[in-house]
Amino acid sequence: MRDTGIESAVMTKVKGLGKFNNRVMDVADYIVPSQGGSSFSIITSMVITANQTQGRCPETDNMFNCTTDDDCIAHLGSNLGNGIITGTCLNNDNGTTGWCEIEGWCPAENDNVSENPMKEVENFTIFIKNSIRFPQFNVKRGNFPSSLNHSDIKTCYYDPVDNPFCPIFKVGNILRDINQSLDSIIDKGGEIGININWKCNLDYNAMHCNPKYFFTRLDAAFENSAASKGYNFRFAKYYQSEDGTEHRTLHKAKAIRVEIIVSGNAGKFSTVPFLINLVAALTSVGLATVFCDIILLNFHKGADEYKAKKFEEVSGIVSESANNRLYEGSQMSIKALEKSPNDSGTFSIGRQESHSQSNQHNK
Amino acid sequence: MRDTGIESAVMTKVKGLGKFNNRVMDVADYIVPSQGGSSFSIITSMVITANQTQGRCPETDNMFNCTTDDDCIAHLGSNLGNGIITGTCLNNDNGTTGWCEIEGWCPAENDNVSENPMKEVENFTIFIKNSIRFPQFNVKRGNFPSSLNHSDIKTCYYDPVDNPFCPIFKVGNILRDINQSLDSIIDKGGEIGININWKCNLDYNAMHCNPKYFFTRLDAAFENSAASKGYNFRFAKYYQSEDGTEHRTLHKAKAIRVEIIVSGNAGKFSTVPFLINLVAALTSVGLATVFCDIILLNFHKGADEYKAKKFEEVSGIVSESANNRLYEGSQMSIKALEKSPNDSGTFSIGRQESHSQSNQHNK
Amino acid sequence: MRDTGIESAVMTKVKGLGKFNNRVMDVADYIVPSQGGSSFSIITSMVITANQTQGRCPETDNMFNCTTDDDCIAHLGSNLGNGIITGTCLNNDNGTTGWCEIEGWCPAENDNVSENPMKEVENFTIFIKNSIRFPQFNVKRGNFPSSLNHSDIKTCYYDPVDNPFCPIFKVGNILRDINQSLDSIIDKGGEIGININWKCNLDYNAMHCNPKYFFTRLDAAFENSAASKGYNFRFAKYYQSEDGTEHRTLHKAKAIRVEIIVSGNAGKFSTVPFLINLVAALTSVGLATVFCDIILLNFHKGADEYKAKKFEEVSGIVSESANNRLYEGSQMSIKALEKSPNDSGTFSIGRQESHSQSNQHNK
Repeated sequence: MRDTGIESAVMTKVKGLGKFNNRVMDVADYIVPSQGGSSFSIITSMVITANQTQGRCPETDNMFNCTTDDDCIAHLGSNLGNGIITGTCLNNDNGTTGWCEIEGWCPAENDNVSENPMKEVENFTIFIKNSIRFPQFNVKRGNFPSSLNHSDIKTCYYDPVDNPFCPIFKVGNILRDINQSLDSIIDKGGEIGININWKCNLDYNAMHCNPKYFFTRLDAAFENSAASKGYNFRFAKYYQSEDGTEHRTLHKAKAIRVEIIVSGNAGKFSTVPFLINLVAALTSVGLATVFCDIILLNFHKGADEYKAKKFEEVSGIVSESANNRLYEGSQMSIKALEKSPNDSGTFSIGRQESHSQSNQHNK
Repeated sequence: MRDTGIESAVMTKVKGLGKFNNRVMDVADYIVPSQGGSSFSIITSMVITANQTQGRCPETDNMFNCTTDDDCIAHLGSNLGNGIITGTCLNNDNGTTGWCEIEGWCPAENDNVSENPMKEVENFTIFIKNSIRFPQFNVKRGNFPSSLNHSDIKTCYYDPVDNPFCPIFKVGNILRDINQSLDSIIDKGGEIGININWKCNLDYNAMHCNPKYFFTRLDAAFENSAASKGYNFRFAKYYQSEDGTEHRTLHKAKAIRVEIIVSGNAGKFSTVPFLINLVAALTSVGLATVFCDIILLNFHKGADEYKAKKFEEVSGIVSESANNRLYEGSQMSIKALEKSPNDSGTFSIGRQESHSQSNQHNK
Repeated sequence: MRDTGIESAVMTKVKGLGKFNNRVMDVADYIVPSQGGSSFSIITSMVITANQTQGRCPETDNMFNCTTDDDCIAHLGSNLGNGIITGTCLNNDNGTTGWCEIEGWCPAENDNVSENPMKEVENFTIFIKNSIRFPQFNVKRGNFPSSLNHSDIKTCYYDPVDNPFCPIFKVGNILRDINQSLDSIIDKGGEIGININWKCNLDYNAMHCNPKYFFTRLDAAFENSAASKGYNFRFAKYYQSEDGTEHRTLHKAKAIRVEIIVSGNAGKFSTVPFLINLVAALTSVGLATVFCDIILLNFHKGADEYKAKKFEEVSGIVSESANNRLYEGSQMSIKALEKSPNDSGTFSIGRQESHSQSNQHNK
């Protein structure tokens, strides 16, 4: 009996301190969303556009370069700008290249500014608390033994060999495990999967039902794709001045996104399905007959006669006399066709000799 | 062999610019949560209650109308108000109808103010990056081919016929596909599902393993429900004055919620299970015997005798003489009962005539 | 035919008003994340550290006690502090115990301050809107009937017996159902699962396809664990002063985390698979033969002869004369071995007596 409908709840907690843009970043700064679920992002780099207010200003992306208003009118309705294209070309005095005007949050984000990403992420740790349940067996398990005490948990790091039950994962170790360089992932962002696989044999004590961890680069399928490398998203912090006007700071965050993927199933020996399967299997491949024959040929007191009858062979003589010697042997010969000594796979233990003789005898 | 335990990671990015309440709204304003996961909301309309501070003020909902304090005392402990009901009736001078007093964030939200929703959502685009893995076969796939280059991705729109591999979905196209009017969904809010279905035959190159998209209105089951139409949620932005007092702006947001639902399975031909299934199937419906008979009746050198024996029939004569003519035919007749020429389904190719004759002959 | 690939979308809405730290808390204050998905947290208690700015200050945790700088140098690179350890020991004048200096958000959070948790959470209600689809049958269902009207929904509470279809759950009732005390969960935080189980027999009208709810304490597996009790997370609200300097209020929130876990499958009678399974089952356990025998022994006109032949027995006489009386009975005796009256399980209705007699007769 297998239960594949695993129920899982994941709680995560990241610890670590980094520096970005001359500021110390802590968990409340770099984890989005904050509440520690099965999917979260560690921001490693940001493009920060401070003090944005609603208004009109030039675009920053070269895609919106213009020399006349017509260049900008062609972009009307575009979704790709930082604001709504008004159709006016700005800063194009003396025929030089300008930028289309937008209406929206100004100044527009300038994507080309780059800061050093937060390298310290390598030493960050991810604590994972995963509780699962197999509803069919009502077995509940946690991903670390209750014997692990508080100080162990504060100091251990997961290691597949030395520390397979420690629920604390170092980001750097994960990256090494999946052969990804820190530099590439903190620069562009990326997605990492931590798979927790529960495969439990509940014939043993549920205590032995423990998870296995493995790691993947989730966006590996897009490795060779020209488009859309990495992982980033935008969010804003909103502020209000004393006079009530609102301004915001826009963040384009490049992040390592971590997804905890829990899978698993549990099995338990169950007599009835086992017997049904066994009988079905034996019957379907003909082994049931073989098994019966073994008993009949060896352990039954009528074994000799049965053997005598079973192991006859079709011979030319029998077939010639089929019609007039109907009473003798022919039926047997047909039986023998179905189960000849060679193809039945059945053997009579230690009496193969006498069997051959009795065969002779019959003829 | 089928792998139904698909592992999936979804990254989404919405693009588009809209106008609400005379402000330009960009991604950082209308996407909640910001980090681009498999479930997100596009805010299309908001009831904004600015400058709330902790204090006491009258309710706004007519449910909390009152003429005396007793009317409000009846509401004590209610979860449905904007704040904790104090039990006092306010603004009921001269016996006119007033409102119960609440303690909490004041002024209370007035739900009846309505702004024009952000119609531009129709032209917003949702970019979906979905990477999957079939753990049993360790096959990784992405939802768009790596040959798709950056400029393609910036300009294409998904279309089931013309552009089935483009991972960019226009909200308006999705709504049309599921026969939902833009007006109804941006006014009340609603839930849309984008199903990504992977059904892969890995006997072919994994390159041919591509997803199919389809769309559903997720709250369709509640279409006819009198209660709880649409989708909305409340959130607040918190501000602090120079003197340290906190105030907030409460938003009741009506939104289109998008859920990316990934499902799928992969199959691969595997010899051993195939043979076991084949043999089991043939045996269980009796075809194995038929198959053996076909060989015996037609292609074996003893075929004629076998046929002679197999196709005898039960006749009145046989049954009368059952006891004294035991040696002749009766056993055969029982055999024939089990496999009469008519119900065995077995045929001897091109010799049906002679078989009838030999039957005659036997009798 | 069973469909186990249930597709589900969950929308939740919490209602209730509580008091924490002399402030009234409403949904926008205590629900994280705000958008009402299948996983959310209700904050019941917070450690609030107001007016943090970037700078240097002493740690607060006794783990970082020091008497000399060397004590702090030992902590360099630690992930466990509130900021980056600088290696300096502060406030250790006159050889008394001081704290290591950190660089980061100052002042550091002091975890030991405790406020009364928000007890009113007991009366909070969780409204759950769950729409599901069985893709194989294209059956869509909602978790409450469309006949439930608006006022019903505003006033009912789920009860397994009296109100099994009401989609509004009282937090206190859930806690009682899973035998958890309110005090322990609001003090430390915890995780609660609301399982929605759909088991549908679509042979009946889909109208009868309704969910069953049950509740679990998700972190039950860690009950006896010395480490990591409860559930908490940190988030910050960011403010900007008029002069542009940023400060934040750090919140360490203890919360009840609620996860809605939807599972289920639907079945429908389908003739072809049913017949295949039936035949396979009957054949594999030998019942097909028994069934045929019942017909032959009782309802067929040749029944008497068949019975006569079927129920012979192996006896000493037969075995002695096996060779010279080959034409008579011996074949039958072997048949009888395979199907003796005792082990065949087949019976001839109401004629067991005469069968024994005919057996006698044969001998």
